[in-house]
Amino acid sequence: MTAPEKRAPKQDRSRLTRERLLGASIDLLATQGWAATTVGAVAAAAGVSRGAAQHHFPTREDLITAALGHMIEQRLEDVRRVGLDLPEPGPERTVAVVRLIVQHYTSDLFKAALHVWTAAASDPALRDRVLPFETHMSREVLVIAADALGYDPADLRVRRPLQATLDLARGLGLADVLSDDSARREKVIRYWAETLDVMLAQVPVASDRDSAPAAF
Amino acid sequence: MTAPEKRAPKQDRSRLTRERLLGASIDLLATQGWAATTVGAVAAAAGVSRGAAQHHFPTREDLITAALGHMIEQRLEDVRRVGLDLPEPGPERTVAVVRLIVQHYTSDLFKAALHVWTAAASDPALRDRVLPFETHMSREVLVIAADALGYDPADLRVRRPLQATLDLARGLGLADVLSDDSARREKVIRYWAETLDVMLAQVPVASDRDSAPAAF
Repeated sequence: MTAPEKRAPKQDRSRLTRERLLGASIDLLATQGWAATTVGAVAAAAGVSRGAAQHHFPTREDLITAALGHMIEQRLEDVRRVGLDLPEPGPERTVAVVRLIVQHYTSDLFKAALHVWTAAASDPALRDRVLPFETHMSREVLVIAADALGYDPADLRVRRPLQATLDLARGLGLADVLSDDSARREKVIRYWAETLDVMLAQVPVASDRDSAPAAF
Repeated sequence: MTAPEKRAPKQDRSRLTRERLLGASIDLLATQGWAATTVGAVAAAAGVSRGAAQHHFPTREDLITAALGHMIEQRLEDVRRVGLDLPEPGPERTVAVVRLIVQHYTSDLFKAALHVWTAAASDPALRDRVLPFETHMSREVLVIAADALGYDPADLRVRRPLQATLDLARGLGLADVLSDDSARREKVIRYWAETLDVMLAQVPVASDRDSAPAAF
């Protein structure tokens, strides 16, 4: 009966090695860019042998797409957690939700993802691997934001302004790559939150929907 | 008196060589990315000898920043020209202005610029050279858009929504790098134009300003 006991720590070590490689990939991508993020460089940064790294991730594309997927799940969990701890419903809650979305697109994950997206722009095979992550992430952020504001994410009158918020946040994330854009960004966040409240004021909140006629 | 006559064609040839190198740089950046866009590769694509290319542009950074600056001026002229030929003032003009801004950020220039920005993210010296172009371009597009809509670009109530429009357009440009986003983009353009009209409805148009008190 010792075999299962021995297997567990080995699996743990393997999982830890994997996670260290994924974390080091995101760090290297965000700070050094695509060309510098090779399996060898990531292994060195993670303190893992090149052979062990290649055992987990045979190619750079395997490593980087796994890193993106892993970090997106972690970020989405962070966003969900913050989403549980927002101000009372009202203008300040909208500001907090817009800020949450914008912070998501100015995070280190976004900076790492930007290097991957840019590389994927001239690499169709990489693009096919990366696109589902981006689609999944956008959809989840939109649902979290709609829930936090008390609206139905399936309602087109909710989805359109929130989708525009995501596009705006992506643009702010890109501007932040060139210069520290944080002071201007805070003004845009407040301005957009006001606009969003005006646009969403036409939509009944989700809690009203249950008592409203289905066709409403 | 033959010397000046001979000088002119030589200057023309030199200018043409320069323009071919700048155009080839943008093409290569947009389609192949930063790593592939070396002085040698650009010279080959432009049908210019490597020596002649290096005479004009000693380093890759010289070549690429000159190419960005040149193409930005060309694109701004295009935007100004389209700006003269818009629908009558009204909702459709706003849609046309938003579309003009979004097209600017989904152009080949944007795709080329994205590669430079991403490279600049981990290269402070390149960033210092690229940032003034981006600042200049954003400012000019904002002024063109405000003029086309008949508003004063110095008015904060005008600048904020237009700045947000530029940020949105940049985000849409980035989304378009990963997948053909044109169908969704057209919906966002129409939605955003409606929103912009709501936000700008509070602001007096520029033609009213002359008759309005200065402090208004």
